Amino acid sequence: MSRFTTTIRVYWEDTDAGGIVFYANYFKFFERARTEWLRSLGLGQQQLRDQWGGMFVVAQASCRYLAPARLDDLVQVTAGLSQPPGKTSLHIAQQATLHATSALLCSSSIQIAWVNATTLRPERMPQPLTSALNTP
Amino acid sequence: MSRFTTTIRVYWEDTDAGGIVFYANYFKFFERARTEWLRSLGLGQQQLRDQWGGMFVVAQASCRYLAPARLDDLVQVTAGLSQPPGKTSLHIAQQATLHATSALLCSSSIQIAWVNATTLRPERMPQPLTSALNTP
Amino acid sequence: MSRFTTTIRVYWEDTDAGGIVFYANYFKFFERARTEWLRSLGLGQQQLRDQWGGMFVVAQASCRYLAPARLDDLVQVTAGLSQPPGKTSLHIAQQATLHATSALLCSSSIQIAWVNATTLRPERMPQPLTSALNTP
Amino acid sequence: MSRFTTTIRVYWEDTDAGGIVFYANYFKFFERARTEWLRSLGLGQQQLRDQWGGMFVVAQASCRYLAPARLDDLVQVTAGLSQPPGKTSLHIAQQATLHATSALLCSSSIQIAWVNATTLRPERMPQPLTSALNTP
Repeated sequence: MSRFTTTIRVYWEDTDAGGIVFYANYFKFFERARTEWLRSLGLGQQQLRDQWGGMFVVAQASCRYLAPARLDDLVQVTAGLSQPPGKTSLHIAQQATLHATSALLCSSSIQIAWVNATTLRPERMPQPLTSALNTP
Repeated sequence: MSRFTTTIRVYWEDTDAGGIVFYANYFKFFERARTEWLRSLGLGQQQLRDQWGGMFVVAQASCRYLAPARLDDLVQVTAGLSQPPGKTSLHIAQQATLHATSALLCSSSIQIAWVNATTLRPERMPQPLTSALNTP
Repeated sequence: MSRFTTTIRVYWEDTDAGGIVFYANYFKFFERARTEWLRSLGLGQQQLRDQWGGMFVVAQASCRYLAPARLDDLVQVTAGLSQPPGKTSLHIAQQATLHATSALLCSSSIQIAWVNATTLRPERMPQPLTSALNTP
Repeated sequence: MSRFTTTIRVYWEDTDAGGIVFYANYFKFFERARTEWLRSLGLGQQQLRDQWGGMFVVAQASCRYLAPARLDDLVQVTAGLSQPPGKTSLHIAQQATLHATSALLCSSSIQIAWVNATTLRPERMPQPLTSALNTP
């Protein structure tokens, strides 16, 4: 399945006293990439919520860290389906690589579930959402 | 006016590649102290919102940084009114000191305004809120 | 193996526009609990670094999210070995539960590796560290 | 004095349960804009540190909040000197505006000081740094 790529700069806020990007912050990078990937498919999340009363929440997240990124580094972050879209959730594969060397920094797998924004209960994804995701 | 004090530990998430607490994170520490100070007066913010449909937003924030804190440091953070409560906003003085030495790390002044949680328009603070704040 | 527990309050900084704790922030909570657990064993991380020139980095992190936490919630976070300590890394199991109801919020498994703080290369954990972790 | 502008997207990580950007996070946005502004002058911060052993720390920060930003908003953030460069510190004015409407979200004034990266003691800024800042 096709992959979306976005570029993220490492700022002071992303680093910790170890001199490297704090491990939890990669999940922010991954979320940004997922958001831009959905936007590239015409799926703005605020708009989805206004229109359908639903939103995505993360059901499962994992990351394997292979190499550190540092202040001022440019990082390429990908997002794409790792399975065909389910009825209520999506399985997404994401990777972060160092722009300068293409070294793989970390590799992640994320499951997001569509929920009612008020009750937070899982719901079937609206049809236009599934369609947009199924378009090659 | 009396001052509330809470103790905050510096974790990896709070530091940056300079080896010290990232400047913006002191505003998180100050917010935590304000929240615990309000709670100590019987004012839970989620409860205020459920009951009155309002919430506090920050209207003005400033901080002077005098000395850095590092990983594992214990920091004392204060909160207290710097002026009698206004009709729609509060002026709050806050300080962070190093627990081990009482060295002043930074000193802040914050104005928070009471707004309607839906429209975000300023509103008069509910009377029980003002009463709780006026009790010596 | 015995488990360490610490209590964490949910503040504004932890939540997002969905009204719940942002998924990446649980990894901050887990890191705080690991730090306090190590401290409870006499292992301060800044001290370990000063003494041995090494530090822990996260090699692998995963989390399954079952229920959301909200502003003002008290969350219990555990940390403990899920396997006997390895030569260069530790496998840690962590859970977050809602203090009020004991509902399980999320469940995590984390692998941290001991690295040289300058080169970031994996190294054997110093003997006193392994001893402290092996003490029942 | 001339002003640098960069564009920042509001992601989930930036918002809080009030549905708006958390006040402390604007200081992250301002830091990103200062970093890109310095980079646009040929001043990479990691490079400055490697070459001169120094770094900038924030000495003073203030912000007046006028209107909120929300998820998916595009925000323009400026950075520029508000005074000629001093010997050891810079006074910087910064603003965040909503891209869609040009509405002013908040207005900030920041003082950053050049310090020795090891001792954190204030030092005279290296000459090439001052030159780059003085070039119109």
